[in-house]
Amino acid sequence: MKTIDFRTEPSQYRHWKLEFDGPVAHLIMDVDPNGGLFEGYELKLNSYDLGVDIELYDAVQRLRFEHPEVGAVVLRSAKESVFCAGANIRMLGKSTHGHKVNFCKFTNETRLSIEDATENSRQTYLCAVRGTAAGGGYELAVTAEHIMLIDDRKSSVSLPELPLLAVLPGTGGLTRVTDKRKVRRDLADVFCTTEEGVRGKRAVQWRLVDELIPPSAWHEKVASRAREFAEKSDRPKDAQGVALDRLAREITDNAMAYSHVRVELEREKRRANITITGPAEAPPADAAAAQALGTKFWPLTIARELDDAILHLRLNEPELGLLTFRTEGDGARVLAYDDFLAANQTHWLMREITHYLKRTLKRVDVTSRSIIALIEPGSCFAGTLAELAFAADRAVMFSGSRAGDNRAPAAIMLGAANFGAYPMGNGITRLQTRFLGEPATIEKAQVRSGETLDAEAAAELGLVTSVFDETDWNDEIRIMLEERASFSPDSLTGLEANLRFAGPETMETRIFGRLTAWQNWIFQRPNAVGEDGALKRYGTGQQPTYDRNRV
Amino acid sequence: MKTIDFRTEPSQYRHWKLEFDGPVAHLIMDVDPNGGLFEGYELKLNSYDLGVDIELYDAVQRLRFEHPEVGAVVLRSAKESVFCAGANIRMLGKSTHGHKVNFCKFTNETRLSIEDATENSRQTYLCAVRGTAAGGGYELAVTAEHIMLIDDRKSSVSLPELPLLAVLPGTGGLTRVTDKRKVRRDLADVFCTTEEGVRGKRAVQWRLVDELIPPSAWHEKVASRAREFAEKSDRPKDAQGVALDRLAREITDNAMAYSHVRVELEREKRRANITITGPAEAPPADAAAAQALGTKFWPLTIARELDDAILHLRLNEPELGLLTFRTEGDGARVLAYDDFLAANQTHWLMREITHYLKRTLKRVDVTSRSIIALIEPGSCFAGTLAELAFAADRAVMFSGSRAGDNRAPAAIMLGAANFGAYPMGNGITRLQTRFLGEPATIEKAQVRSGETLDAEAAAELGLVTSVFDETDWNDEIRIMLEERASFSPDSLTGLEANLRFAGPETMETRIFGRLTAWQNWIFQRPNAVGEDGALKRYGTGQQPTYDRNRV
Repeated sequence: MKTIDFRTEPSQYRHWKLEFDGPVAHLIMDVDPNGGLFEGYELKLNSYDLGVDIELYDAVQRLRFEHPEVGAVVLRSAKESVFCAGANIRMLGKSTHGHKVNFCKFTNETRLSIEDATENSRQTYLCAVRGTAAGGGYELAVTAEHIMLIDDRKSSVSLPELPLLAVLPGTGGLTRVTDKRKVRRDLADVFCTTEEGVRGKRAVQWRLVDELIPPSAWHEKVASRAREFAEKSDRPKDAQGVALDRLAREITDNAMAYSHVRVELEREKRRANITITGPAEAPPADAAAAQALGTKFWPLTIARELDDAILHLRLNEPELGLLTFRTEGDGARVLAYDDFLAANQTHWLMREITHYLKRTLKRVDVTSRSIIALIEPGSCFAGTLAELAFAADRAVMFSGSRAGDNRAPAAIMLGAANFGAYPMGNGITRLQTRFLGEPATIEKAQVRSGETLDAEAAAELGLVTSVFDETDWNDEIRIMLEERASFSPDSLTGLEANLRFAGPETMETRIFGRLTAWQNWIFQRPNAVGEDGALKRYGTGQQPTYDRNRV
Repeated sequence: MKTIDFRTEPSQYRHWKLEFDGPVAHLIMDVDPNGGLFEGYELKLNSYDLGVDIELYDAVQRLRFEHPEVGAVVLRSAKESVFCAGANIRMLGKSTHGHKVNFCKFTNETRLSIEDATENSRQTYLCAVRGTAAGGGYELAVTAEHIMLIDDRKSSVSLPELPLLAVLPGTGGLTRVTDKRKVRRDLADVFCTTEEGVRGKRAVQWRLVDELIPPSAWHEKVASRAREFAEKSDRPKDAQGVALDRLAREITDNAMAYSHVRVELEREKRRANITITGPAEAPPADAAAAQALGTKFWPLTIARELDDAILHLRLNEPELGLLTFRTEGDGARVLAYDDFLAANQTHWLMREITHYLKRTLKRVDVTSRSIIALIEPGSCFAGTLAELAFAADRAVMFSGSRAGDNRAPAAIMLGAANFGAYPMGNGITRLQTRFLGEPATIEKAQVRSGETLDAEAAAELGLVTSVFDETDWNDEIRIMLEERASFSPDSLTGLEANLRFAGPETMETRIFGRLTAWQNWIFQRPNAVGEDGALKRYGTGQQPTYDRNRV
């Protein structure tokens, strides 16, 4: 299997262009039909595959980190008659179920990161739709804060997945239509069952787009709208960005090594053991000094490395169904970095890094692998890194020390980062989600912030699932991990997708929970993926054959 | 295919017994192993199939309508060592995907109706668990307001679906564990992956049950708790119930006829046309007179008939993917009945009927068939019946009259029933769901209550999807219905499951949306249902074989 590499940079892009005009950037889709990630399909009409989305994700990240001066981003197409035709159908028809699901998940995350940039980095995305925005093309458009449609009697928005392909606009489309655009449900029904979509005034009336612009005013109006949004931004006009240099890593058959993240791949046991190293030094003197460190600033380093490691494992190591998280280092120093970030949230870069850590933790939350945190002597599950224990399906903690080990006993240290900095997709913190049934525990935990909580104290507070001492640790952990690895991967995916997201639902959790689950179901059904199904027959001239039973 | 009949009564029960002790009823599970709905499996250990659940639903309904004096219901088992072993595995292994999905949906609805009785009829369910409550058995227990577990070192609660069967506790289980019992997510993870479950004090500590009772005090404590809950009820101690006599209906190959509901089955077009007739007479003088009419009281009549028709279509007519709703009668008279019900909500039976109508409308909402309301001359889409138009995926309205037709032009009439009496599963009304993006419209509509809104007025208010006059009606409707029937049934199911439930999520919508979708996905996967999958191999002594790829 070809290794999918998520690392790229603008000079390597085949499908996107970035142009800059002061506080406005243009993110221009111009997909190279011959640039597919795999063989066997052409990316015609700005249709996309995972490779196109990897570049988009990279561009969105770079706009945030490398371009503090940019307050608005115009998403548009370089092609005359098409904005974007959505996910490439031949690619979908040939993909395994697992690839389709993981591709859609990454696409969802990238689209949510566009909304996160708009909301939290004040880098507002606008979308300028000229030509057809069909399926995933409209799904992409609707991530923007403001959608402009040219009134040329041809350009339209549509979600033709159902009539054409027997699947759903399942990568955020349906949910954004109802939850974000708040389109009336019967009009949404018409919209989603009408192959040709909607154009002109009706698109505005149905709230599918925000603004209709005559061709004569198109360029000028798009530019002026972008400037308006850029002016509202609080991003610094004259700051320098941080170059996201190429992430250094070494991947061998049984390990992945980054500077502060290493992953041991235990193939025969079907698990990947991830260890994150705490900061080697105290935080720098101030935000300027932190920025001078660039990608070597510890919080940014681990955000990037963990992000890449999770993505790599998802797409390239599907059989490693179990992730363990360990940390090593000085917990107090992790808290010092958290405090440093918290104290400097008015600095654009420190804000960016906090949101990047937030997104990376969310990526862990929606990763369909069982996750076990192993909290051992010498570890530093403190503040930001303690979130990994709360993101895990279970956290198991070592009580006391191992004979002959002079490192500090296992401890959890709570800090402000655990009480608000990193909301989950459901809008509340991992501790709030954990303690839905006993909210008073959150306050009890919060007053212990900064303390070194040993295994017994952590268990008493409900922060860990179980505690073992040296006598039992090895056997208990071995049995637990072996048992977990013996279960059906599918049922674990379903279990975790439900238990991890207790509590409130948001547009984000509805996308990953409800919509994705229905799409995954359909992605298994012969009506879509069978030999006579719509995804396989699309473009062949043959009509699909459907099993007419309603389920 | 054997026709599944949802009509039953206590004298026909094979699996349940009802006992009455003043204000306390006992609903006792005693499944007849040889009483399966289909051949090929034995219902051992109080395991259940759809037939068992049909009786349970009937019992829950009768307790509400026939027993106003009952304020508390104790759910228990007649078998010594088992409370309930959950859904029968051999039945699941042999069932079609469609049957499994529809069986689970009905089970979900019945369980929600138990919670509805507790919350809204003040008939509180308690559960007395002696023996094992495993899988669906615990899912059933957790519908109760108060769960008592006997502390006999053997009795336990468990959700062993994942380790034993490679599926989920997917019929409300996971969602109730997190949302209702608010079990900590990591403990829920342990609970759901531990075959033998949890017993004794730990079950209370983890919030899986409410109370642990020593064997010596068991009968007395269960009885006293039930009396306590019964005493808190506002149900009348001395009222007479309404006998739910056997529903009269005639089903032929192309029609289903009830007294006020008729269904035309157009098999070649794959649709069922449902027509509901409005009340023939004005409402009775008072609640006592209404009660004297019994099941002939129009609102109760249509609730029962529509309920039965929908269930029949779901289980027995899976290829009829499209339902049309028509009404005929006098809209003003429908509103008069609504007003009558609203004015008499302090009468236990009028309250029951309102909640039954609510549940029946919810049953429509979660029915996975496309639903089109056709609002034509002579119809009475008013108040309660107008909810059918708002429950539909689309509502199409006739403008003006047909030549030679002297009935009143099509009209919608709004009334108080449309603004609060019938919340959807998401906790808000169908109009609130419809107008999420324009809440002001709800007030605009509400001030028009009681008016005869013609097609143009209804369209202006956004109450209907489209309007056609006599010139276009026949062709437009034909094309729309033919097109709908041509789409992939699966993608329509997914589309409708998303678009119908815009807005807030509740435990109920999370059960039907998120959990059900994941379970349906797993119900397609070879790891569960393949020849070597866990559902097929259960009980054979052979281990299942799993595809180890994580999706």
